[in-house]
Amino acid sequence: MSHIHAQMHGRTISLEQDLLQKNNLIAAQNRHWFQARNILALNLVSSPGAGKTTLLTRTIEDLQQDITISVIEGDQETANDAQKIRETGCRVVQINTGTGCHLEANMVRKGYQELDPPSNSLVAIENVGNLVCPALFDLGEDAKVAILSVTEGDDKPLKYPHMFRASQVMILTKIDLLPYVQFDLDRCQEYARQVNPKLEIFPVSAVKGDGLNNWYEWLNMKVSSTLPSLN
Amino acid sequence: MSHIHAQMHGRTISLEQDLLQKNNLIAAQNRHWFQARNILALNLVSSPGAGKTTLLTRTIEDLQQDITISVIEGDQETANDAQKIRETGCRVVQINTGTGCHLEANMVRKGYQELDPPSNSLVAIENVGNLVCPALFDLGEDAKVAILSVTEGDDKPLKYPHMFRASQVMILTKIDLLPYVQFDLDRCQEYARQVNPKLEIFPVSAVKGDGLNNWYEWLNMKVSSTLPSLN
Repeated sequence: MSHIHAQMHGRTISLEQDLLQKNNLIAAQNRHWFQARNILALNLVSSPGAGKTTLLTRTIEDLQQDITISVIEGDQETANDAQKIRETGCRVVQINTGTGCHLEANMVRKGYQELDPPSNSLVAIENVGNLVCPALFDLGEDAKVAILSVTEGDDKPLKYPHMFRASQVMILTKIDLLPYVQFDLDRCQEYARQVNPKLEIFPVSAVKGDGLNNWYEWLNMKVSSTLPSLN
Repeated sequence: MSHIHAQMHGRTISLEQDLLQKNNLIAAQNRHWFQARNILALNLVSSPGAGKTTLLTRTIEDLQQDITISVIEGDQETANDAQKIRETGCRVVQINTGTGCHLEANMVRKGYQELDPPSNSLVAIENVGNLVCPALFDLGEDAKVAILSVTEGDDKPLKYPHMFRASQVMILTKIDLLPYVQFDLDRCQEYARQVNPKLEIFPVSAVKGDGLNNWYEWLNMKVSSTLPSLN
């Protein structure tokens, strides 16, 4: 959308609204579809290389006894991430966007039609690595989960506020690297809450395991409230 | 643009071409303006937090005796990076894109009109942190310089090929963190050259100084060929 914002002519603005409206209509349908199956759908968003796939594979491995998880995997190119997810034994479909910079609701619809996720389960949608554009596109998810690695710098919530405003959760990844980078954990959380006072924040190391319990607790709580059969 | 790609209707495709064409026209004018002043213009592109600003401030500090450098600084929000650049004593203008995910040629035009960079100098354009969208937008630069930090993973040139294809140079930053992350330097360079065989690649640590000489050598070579007065 922002591509078009830059050229402020009436025609392009109305087209932009058209596109977002169409996306939002399909997103609402997706949301109903997920609800009909008691599925918790999460939209994982971050910069490239923030650790979405590593966090996701670790989460699947740690929780698969309790929660059925399947994945819609978005990337410009390659099926590398889908392959990593598949190795956990989890169901996954890959969507390649080509030059596209984010997933849209119609791509996610195709994704879950192919995936056919079971009732009472969790569907994780791993978006294209982009801290900007996916903020604007509702996919029909229950919540956006923004992932920020400590190697990216503690100022990012202020510099890219739209994503952190659109998200319910911020996971601060790679905290095992804190001794080697300039990153103030408290300041980052303060900045994030300036942008979004309701944001849930979980600092974790998906490699070492630190902090994952808090994330899993949130996830279990969210799953319980979405999936009545598990209450 | 990719926002529109996803909705493949005749009307949106022609509008997309319109937008890119308008951008390209202004970019061509920018290029002439830079040429008229013997200015080397570089477009620095990367994910958020890859280290563009750190590399840039270090480069300015190390080269300012020999090359006059000024900066057009693009961010969604804040003037933090412009402030960091200003502390080097260098001229800088900040452009905030709001929800916008990349700089466009008309923003850069406003930027250099305000900056008024001297003849026979280097203008560095620091784009919004986004490894996807800025690949499509010519700003009138001589070259795109893609910056990838080793904390993002060695597979990124394959997963986000458009940016690495559009760039003349890839700078691999934060190599001081190599002992602490899974990143195969050779494999990353191999992947990058699969996507763009002509890519110049410089692994560096802007914090420790490793590898910067090769980058400076390329920059001096480029400056010499752009600015005849320095030959």
